[in-house]
Amino acid sequence: MSRNKIGQQSVAYSNKVFIRGVGSVVGDLEKKGPLGEYFDKYTDDPMYGEKTWEKAESRMLKECMIEAMEKAGRKKKDMDMILSGDLINQLMSSSFMARDMNIPFLGVYGACSTMTESLLVGSMLLDGGYGSNIICCASSHFCTAERQFRMPVEHGNQKPPSAQHTATAAGAMVISDEKLELTNVMKNQSPLANVIVTGGTIGKVIDAGISDVNQMGSAMAPAAVDTILTHLQDTGRELEYYDLVLTGDLGYIGRDIALDLLVGAGLDKRTLQDRYHDCGVLIYDRENQDVHSGGSGCGCSAAVYCSKIIPEIMMGKYNRVLLVSTGAMLSTISPMQGESIPGIAHAVALERFDEE
Amino acid sequence: MSRNKIGQQSVAYSNKVFIRGVGSVVGDLEKKGPLGEYFDKYTDDPMYGEKTWEKAESRMLKECMIEAMEKAGRKKKDMDMILSGDLINQLMSSSFMARDMNIPFLGVYGACSTMTESLLVGSMLLDGGYGSNIICCASSHFCTAERQFRMPVEHGNQKPPSAQHTATAAGAMVISDEKLELTNVMKNQSPLANVIVTGGTIGKVIDAGISDVNQMGSAMAPAAVDTILTHLQDTGRELEYYDLVLTGDLGYIGRDIALDLLVGAGLDKRTLQDRYHDCGVLIYDRENQDVHSGGSGCGCSAAVYCSKIIPEIMMGKYNRVLLVSTGAMLSTISPMQGESIPGIAHAVALERFDEE
Repeated sequence: MSRNKIGQQSVAYSNKVFIRGVGSVVGDLEKKGPLGEYFDKYTDDPMYGEKTWEKAESRMLKECMIEAMEKAGRKKKDMDMILSGDLINQLMSSSFMARDMNIPFLGVYGACSTMTESLLVGSMLLDGGYGSNIICCASSHFCTAERQFRMPVEHGNQKPPSAQHTATAAGAMVISDEKLELTNVMKNQSPLANVIVTGGTIGKVIDAGISDVNQMGSAMAPAAVDTILTHLQDTGRELEYYDLVLTGDLGYIGRDIALDLLVGAGLDKRTLQDRYHDCGVLIYDRENQDVHSGGSGCGCSAAVYCSKIIPEIMMGKYNRVLLVSTGAMLSTISPMQGESIPGIAHAVALERFDEE
Repeated sequence: MSRNKIGQQSVAYSNKVFIRGVGSVVGDLEKKGPLGEYFDKYTDDPMYGEKTWEKAESRMLKECMIEAMEKAGRKKKDMDMILSGDLINQLMSSSFMARDMNIPFLGVYGACSTMTESLLVGSMLLDGGYGSNIICCASSHFCTAERQFRMPVEHGNQKPPSAQHTATAAGAMVISDEKLELTNVMKNQSPLANVIVTGGTIGKVIDAGISDVNQMGSAMAPAAVDTILTHLQDTGRELEYYDLVLTGDLGYIGRDIALDLLVGAGLDKRTLQDRYHDCGVLIYDRENQDVHSGGSGCGCSAAVYCSKIIPEIMMGKYNRVLLVSTGAMLSTISPMQGESIPGIAHAVALERFDEE
């Protein structure tokens, strides 16, 4: 009876789920990174004009949602619901955002996998007919995350090279049952096209036994690999089906582990190297920015998808993209209780929408 | 196009979403309370045989899921996904449960509204055809919550009379696209019937400006009232449509405020008094158990629904019930930053399924 389920863990949609608008807001370091030009807004003030970092993160969420709604040509009153999550205890950034937005709110949490969780659940709810316009988003903030998970920022704590830098970033997508009318403004340009979500894969919690909190990439890589392999098996697709497979924030170490594991599982190395990337690697310039093993945080993949990747699908650079945000489901006390770090990854498949 | 949406914030299902099995596990205080006989399992050991309270809470979740699957006549391998959440930072109890269950996992968070959030989202995903068997659950544990939100338990902290007692409790529902075959075993008994989820209302975050963390009931009552009124308006139903309207954990003070606000909004007081109750009031005996303003925690409403309410619908005591779990979206740091407490409530409508 589950007519939209395929294989063990995946879903495929019956209707067109359009990504009608995207918005991204980042901090100073992200703006100065290699993707700086793509973000809609940035702030060089970690407080973003607010009294606390948490309110600043909340404001980033609001700003990128407003940006996404504007691009979508939709208003707040058109929105059926928000699905959002963040790293802060009790989803503080998201619930304070939702308090101000006055739109029905569903809090979701998958650690740094939250952007693909909100997009996957949101797109199922849209395809299923429970709304016509749904906002899916996620955020993170270096200062809120450092204080909560690590050391006070003022402490100037040193980290081992395997650690990652939590991105100050937020991304929002307005998904809709109506496509966006697009106008080509340049001659000889590939025609612009809408982006649709065609389905995805719900991840399982996978624990590889890593207990070092400075090895998040290693802890999450097995979950990413499990989800990618399951997605390919469930859908009967080859890796070549996608022009780009993008994990969330495995960083340099986790990305290399994921590559090794995928090759070990029988995928072709050259094919992988051509199309597999990681947002935690893309968002910073490792040589010139002090970010150790790369970026992390829910906002890292959210902002990369919403700034560069989705517009590039619209412009024709990619036809099919698999987004796989990755989360480490640890708390501040679980490692102290001797627990290893459970990982999770949810996948969402995007395609350029062919009008014909 | 959103064919299953009604009104501003509500949804109504096209297919039958059966609650095929329910399970509940509680602690000692809950077992000794007025609903003690209804719970499937209990433990008088706050550790539940584990090394930490968090693992104990995780085990409670697993046990009530197993109970729900057994009653549903379903196995772990039949489950398409779990939707679960709890109060512990980064959903530790749920993600550790999911690590052991090996079922696709979606983490949800709505503070103490989590049970109706997981059931509402889960039932939309089932109705929409993304799975045939989905587990929806939520948990809380007095000791994990006290440590995280208040004082170390060993401290023996005193609380004001307006404070509530976090229930050590977990509840799980297996929802399914196939009904349960029921056999009547007693003469003259009302015939047993299946319970279906017919829809619900997604709550907005409502902040009444309460900033006292010992006044959770007051902080959440306006959100509960907003969701109940919106549900009636969206569905065009009168209060009399439901035999029972049950909020999650407003406790004595919050329940009275909710009653006042509902009467103030024009609902009939006598009709309300006949059918409106609160799980935080029902779960303990205020006279003989030291629980101040009543029970709270995600597990409070989860365990009450899964132990007493849903079986009573099956047995014919109620025909139509509206579940409205209520959450206070504060963190440990938000009150210290001068923030008031945002509340949220999601509603789920249950009906006795008439075979004809």
